[in-house]
Amino acid sequence: MSDRERIYLFDTTLRDGQQTPGVDFSVEDKIAIANMLDHFGIDYVEGGYPGANPTDTAFFSKRRTGRAKMTAFGMTKRAGVSASNDPGLAALIGAAGDAVCLVAKSWDYHVKVALGISNEDNLECIADSIAAVAASGKEALLDCEHFFDGYKANPAYALACAKAAYDSGARWVVLCDTNGGTQPDEIAEIIAAVIAGGIPGENLGIHAHNDTGQAVANSLVAVNAGVRQVQGTLNGIGERCGNANIITLAATLALKERYSSRFELGIDAEGLTEISALSHGFDELLNRAPDPQLPYVGASAFATKAGIHASALLKDPKTYEHVDPAAVGNSRRVMVSDQGGKSNFINELNRLGISVAKNDPRLDKLIAIVKEREAMGYAYEAADASFELLALRELGSVPEFFRVDSFRVMVERRFDSHGRVKTVSEAVVKLEIDGRKVMSVSEGDGPVNALDKAFRKDLGKFQGEIADLKLADYKVRILNGGTEAITRVLIESVDDDGVRWWTVGVSENIIDASFQALMDSITFKLMKNRKLAGRAAAE
Amino acid sequence: MSDRERIYLFDTTLRDGQQTPGVDFSVEDKIAIANMLDHFGIDYVEGGYPGANPTDTAFFSKRRTGRAKMTAFGMTKRAGVSASNDPGLAALIGAAGDAVCLVAKSWDYHVKVALGISNEDNLECIADSIAAVAASGKEALLDCEHFFDGYKANPAYALACAKAAYDSGARWVVLCDTNGGTQPDEIAEIIAAVIAGGIPGENLGIHAHNDTGQAVANSLVAVNAGVRQVQGTLNGIGERCGNANIITLAATLALKERYSSRFELGIDAEGLTEISALSHGFDELLNRAPDPQLPYVGASAFATKAGIHASALLKDPKTYEHVDPAAVGNSRRVMVSDQGGKSNFINELNRLGISVAKNDPRLDKLIAIVKEREAMGYAYEAADASFELLALRELGSVPEFFRVDSFRVMVERRFDSHGRVKTVSEAVVKLEIDGRKVMSVSEGDGPVNALDKAFRKDLGKFQGEIADLKLADYKVRILNGGTEAITRVLIESVDDDGVRWWTVGVSENIIDASFQALMDSITFKLMKNRKLAGRAAAE
Repeated sequence: MSDRERIYLFDTTLRDGQQTPGVDFSVEDKIAIANMLDHFGIDYVEGGYPGANPTDTAFFSKRRTGRAKMTAFGMTKRAGVSASNDPGLAALIGAAGDAVCLVAKSWDYHVKVALGISNEDNLECIADSIAAVAASGKEALLDCEHFFDGYKANPAYALACAKAAYDSGARWVVLCDTNGGTQPDEIAEIIAAVIAGGIPGENLGIHAHNDTGQAVANSLVAVNAGVRQVQGTLNGIGERCGNANIITLAATLALKERYSSRFELGIDAEGLTEISALSHGFDELLNRAPDPQLPYVGASAFATKAGIHASALLKDPKTYEHVDPAAVGNSRRVMVSDQGGKSNFINELNRLGISVAKNDPRLDKLIAIVKEREAMGYAYEAADASFELLALRELGSVPEFFRVDSFRVMVERRFDSHGRVKTVSEAVVKLEIDGRKVMSVSEGDGPVNALDKAFRKDLGKFQGEIADLKLADYKVRILNGGTEAITRVLIESVDDDGVRWWTVGVSENIIDASFQALMDSITFKLMKNRKLAGRAAAE
Repeated sequence: MSDRERIYLFDTTLRDGQQTPGVDFSVEDKIAIANMLDHFGIDYVEGGYPGANPTDTAFFSKRRTGRAKMTAFGMTKRAGVSASNDPGLAALIGAAGDAVCLVAKSWDYHVKVALGISNEDNLECIADSIAAVAASGKEALLDCEHFFDGYKANPAYALACAKAAYDSGARWVVLCDTNGGTQPDEIAEIIAAVIAGGIPGENLGIHAHNDTGQAVANSLVAVNAGVRQVQGTLNGIGERCGNANIITLAATLALKERYSSRFELGIDAEGLTEISALSHGFDELLNRAPDPQLPYVGASAFATKAGIHASALLKDPKTYEHVDPAAVGNSRRVMVSDQGGKSNFINELNRLGISVAKNDPRLDKLIAIVKEREAMGYAYEAADASFELLALRELGSVPEFFRVDSFRVMVERRFDSHGRVKTVSEAVVKLEIDGRKVMSVSEGDGPVNALDKAFRKDLGKFQGEIADLKLADYKVRILNGGTEAITRVLIESVDDDGVRWWTVGVSENIIDASFQALMDSITFKLMKNRKLAGRAAAE
């Protein structure tokens, strides 16, 4: 039993993060991200604004989290109607989930200009709306918009808005630095005043933005001042310059002694080692390259260039690293020697059941090939099955189950006899399986789908083996802009055993890149079947 | 005559910034960057380590700055030799420039492990080396490496190192958070102790790293604690997670009242308006895309997408922006998206020169279409040109310059006569331009490239108009995983006027999605030419 105080992490990637220019989540995206956050141990997942747009309404059609409290965001009731008669508020309370976070103005200027209602009406909207949420049995939160700017303009009124929510049963009153320009010392002063004003820190949250590059500092100074809920987004996405990066916050709170000695999170030390994977997985889902300089999780976060530090670093890493890279699932990179790299390879190969000696020349050749191909754009860390096949080809052997003589993909768009636009995708493949020539043709939703169908239409004696192989996901990234773009395709496959594997292809031609990934996937499936058969025989 | 205290900005982009993985400056780069910094009004430009490598030696072969103090970085003399007999120190003092910044260990552990000398010898190296620089008439600075970790381990010794430099004539004693893990409140406490220990704040500098995302906060808390020199790099590049971003620091110190009322920089209000250009110019030189979320200078730093904010923002920007975008040479952006309300649309349409009344039913129809299409996967906020065409079609008119009867794209992979794998992409398009039928065929690097080439091979009388149209970037996003994936294609185009525009296409078929974006790009270019012609005629 720990006597440390609990800090609650509130993620708003799916709500405030959605405000990021260029970020537009589909329902599938939101479900996937909610699962990632829930699995990681985030306490609250704010999913969006049900009723505001079809995507968020669909997301809130049912519960999407396990441990984490699924939170709906929306506005307080309008002035002049009772909470029970406000359809917007009713929709929020009726949405799936555990908590409702209402946003309200706490800067009197905005109450007048943006809402055009009296200060008293605004307080009444806050009190009644929070009371209605609390009465529904759901947890009620209030986002005090523009709280810090509002407090500077009219301290009494900003505090009155916060108090109205607290006195009406809000579990959390969240102080938002909506414009993002408040400085850390102002945050500390104002939060001290709010607590002195009668709202306990254990009921206060902080919502900081990065407009002066201090969202993380503003959040931590708020924790030092007494707040116990910290809001942020994955990798700090969000409106304008973004929100506080919840990944940086979680790692700092968990690993920096001055916090870890006083506070605990819903994430244990083992869970924290998944934080780098969480950050990279989110970028992968956004289909953007991770920022190598991100605190704790960036590829360069523990990298040292050849120089005065590197040699001493190897003598004693601890005194050159502010935390242990392993604690956040990251690793040290000293760009003078790849000794670390070699043992990483051996570990990864052992994990795949491939044993190789450290001094085996084939290992050096494999490392060289991987480095060369990754320089070309292959991403083996994201394509486990392609890596395993590559390693087996160098260190063992992979039978040629079939040979592809050629394929042809055709996409045609024209007007049909009724003058409607019609787009047809067709693929023809020519294979050789034990000397037998096979030619298959198929149509598909698009060229890759047609190619996939054509390949799996007739694999001769292997046909039965791949009957349960399905494509689960397909990702494309253009590695260098412009017309000579290199395309990387990642394909996720799954079979009836529920096993999932990723394969990769790289080419200036997206069809060719997809073809490479498809071939690896089918070959991996056939190898997998033989591995299982081998185990069965051995038993 | 101002009674505000002077804060000195010290830029180490060319020295510590050089430690960034992937960054390697040529002499020409360094000269260009030094000019940018000097022109902007940075007080100190640390150019590198003369003698350590040919690039830095060449850079220091002559003076590269005007106003700014050109500073050479290097090590204190070795133990056992006198300062006058140390060739390395002599080279530093002999290098072109105004100041020499020496780095020394201030953590006793590193004195033992990394240097292998006694604590006393280290103090003597600091004192003699600083004295030698001061005696040469150049300004002497000492970087106290690992100062904060060292102070925590052995306060007396860390302070003794700093004092040795100060007592020997160092103009500046720079406290470095070398490992980057120190928290703001620790920085404040330790700096207070150093000043109490006898080194005036006006002789202290801060060198912070971003390993917990608080480099800017650590620098500002140091200023509040009394230091008067702040070190950083352009856009926060640097080892691991980077250094403090000197651009964010300069803007905050100049624009935030709690700093600007007490301090002044070597940059006036007019100079500050060039800070966005400085940031983007540096990225241009590094040949990397600027981070749109950078504080103050990012393309998104003053962008808003939220409907509830946008409408009020237009009523009174000041209360929604923490500083005036114009003060940093940036500008406001209100983006269209299904998050947005009516005022986003009107504002964006006005920006495009399309005026429409708020109660115009065609506006509601346009908004409905945008929301519906964004639900399908279109992203208009990222595709300004496609949005403009869509708006013009609803609110005005877009001529049908040409009609696409059909197209066909073929990708074939086979073995050539020499048994080498060969992949060929070919596109055939059939167009109609003023009743004239045009049929073109082209090969390309991939299917999209072939299609693009075929379309632009013969546009009849418009051919000359699109001669300078080029594809600058191509982005693909799979919106929902699996085989029935919907594909979003974004294409960036550019012409010889240097104008850039984005268009979007969405389809289950990537070729079809690319086709839509290509068509929008060509049509936008033709419209653009007519708009310009119209303006010219009007003048």
